[in-house]
Amino acid sequence: MNTLKIFSDLPWGGSARAMLADGVAPHELLWPARPAVSVLAASGPDPAFAGADIAFGQPGADVVLQSRRLRWLHLASAGFTRFDTPEFRAAAARRRLLVTNSSAVYAGPCAEQVFAFMLAQARQLPLTLASRCANGSDQWNQLRNQCASLSHQNVLLLGFGAIARRLVELLRPFEPDIAAFRREARGDEGVPVVTPGQLPAALASADQVVNLLPDNADSRYFFSAERLAILKPGAVFYNIGRGTTVDQAALLAALESGRLAAAWLDVTDPEPLPPDHPLVSAPNCHLTPHIAGGHRNEAESLVRHFLANFRRFLADAPLRDRIM
Amino acid sequence: MNTLKIFSDLPWGGSARAMLADGVAPHELLWPARPAVSVLAASGPDPAFAGADIAFGQPGADVVLQSRRLRWLHLASAGFTRFDTPEFRAAAARRRLLVTNSSAVYAGPCAEQVFAFMLAQARQLPLTLASRCANGSDQWNQLRNQCASLSHQNVLLLGFGAIARRLVELLRPFEPDIAAFRREARGDEGVPVVTPGQLPAALASADQVVNLLPDNADSRYFFSAERLAILKPGAVFYNIGRGTTVDQAALLAALESGRLAAAWLDVTDPEPLPPDHPLVSAPNCHLTPHIAGGHRNEAESLVRHFLANFRRFLADAPLRDRIM
Repeated sequence: MNTLKIFSDLPWGGSARAMLADGVAPHELLWPARPAVSVLAASGPDPAFAGADIAFGQPGADVVLQSRRLRWLHLASAGFTRFDTPEFRAAAARRRLLVTNSSAVYAGPCAEQVFAFMLAQARQLPLTLASRCANGSDQWNQLRNQCASLSHQNVLLLGFGAIARRLVELLRPFEPDIAAFRREARGDEGVPVVTPGQLPAALASADQVVNLLPDNADSRYFFSAERLAILKPGAVFYNIGRGTTVDQAALLAALESGRLAAAWLDVTDPEPLPPDHPLVSAPNCHLTPHIAGGHRNEAESLVRHFLANFRRFLADAPLRDRIM
Repeated sequence: MNTLKIFSDLPWGGSARAMLADGVAPHELLWPARPAVSVLAASGPDPAFAGADIAFGQPGADVVLQSRRLRWLHLASAGFTRFDTPEFRAAAARRRLLVTNSSAVYAGPCAEQVFAFMLAQARQLPLTLASRCANGSDQWNQLRNQCASLSHQNVLLLGFGAIARRLVELLRPFEPDIAAFRREARGDEGVPVVTPGQLPAALASADQVVNLLPDNADSRYFFSAERLAILKPGAVFYNIGRGTTVDQAALLAALESGRLAAAWLDVTDPEPLPPDHPLVSAPNCHLTPHIAGGHRNEAESLVRHFLANFRRFLADAPLRDRIM
């Protein structure tokens, strides 16, 4: 057996690093001089990369394409914007480069994040956690009346991958009316798939609009002023996809006019928004700092997922979460 | 058919009142001079009460017992503390007074409230909604690492009525390990019921401790200093039952020591807590002002539930949510 060289630019020490080294042994790990700053950010070029058969982390697209040796790239994120171009896809296909992502690691936490948003909105947590009103007071009656049930809601999912599938499972006890929009329907969605022609009607009838779209040429400003203007009065908009998929000025206008009941955004453009950005203080706009995928032992989850795929790679078995 | 007289002390005008009057016609509604201030608070004595065959609302226990005529009391709450005494139960049994509550109306919203708390805790919403940290920063990595999944948690339910049943349904996709403690096991719980002897071990192994206990002589200070001290380090405590079931000084100590990861309390003793009460500023203590049962169109839901039971009453059929 030839010894494979696995390059990882991930910013880990400690147990995750040891777990990775143990898991690939007797194959060899290559560490860069300067690792990525996070599991989401691209790392810079590194001389060690040229010797790698496999890369696990966040190398730049140019770095990947410059390597003559790389056979498999496993990204430490679910998103893969910088690789999602016709040029990269063509080059990867030509060179038979396998590309996988860490979608399975992030699907659960991301689905739970948007689900937490949906319940916090239904139960009005931002308002109720801040209130000390007395039982029976006008404010109290009003607060109770603002709370709602998540049952029997009309939910539209924009994007339909692993996160959406998990969210559909989580929502099931609420007996929602779910539809999904995705680039290519595959027939295995388990919920009705909205065609482009049906999209305006679907947007107009959804109580809960869940944006899970990745960032690519097709999705940029998907939520345009025109599409946001179609949304049902009182609808709630969630974004845990990418900030670039939304016309933020139009979203602001929809919140300021009161037409949208609320927006819950884990992603924005840029991140974080500057403190004086109008969305920061917009009515009913709730922001979290791109933490949807985060979870305790995230590094270990990523390593475990990579190692499971590494064993498949060694066995010439199909890789999980293959994107190219 | 004799015309029945239905006394309602509920503080409603508008559509709920009209719906009630229409729904009971040709039977007669009696309205008090001074209605209850909310659907939860007891109303005072009222001369109209003496003529009532049925009462729907929140009359005082003494008012009920003074009536020679009343045949059925339907409470507009799920809680029924002031009727849950040996004296009232004996008097009601002697007089064959039917007593029902509005448990079915509040089970869904209450279950969703505690579920929203659980997800907000898992995804650390109080922290993450307040943070504008930058991707890749130390604070960001720390925040992501504080988030967790609600999957595969050990959940202990204290009290097992309609709220608990709904919560069990909502939690199912998370594949929890659920056990319940209740006054009398009936064998239809669908989850293991903890005996008093098993309670200390169950308290010691729960990740999520959900207090749904009503207020009665058995439940007062159920969460004593001793029981709170058994809880697993890092456990999360939820209370949407009644504030009087908890030794709040001991809860405060458990939060201040960091042994409990968090407390989420919709109910306290008193309500609201005075602004200088130490629980208001205790670390990881999240308070909402007794709004768990609240929901849009609550008055209409209560009326609909009463009217469905009223039709059963007229047909001599068993009443729903009968408590005595």
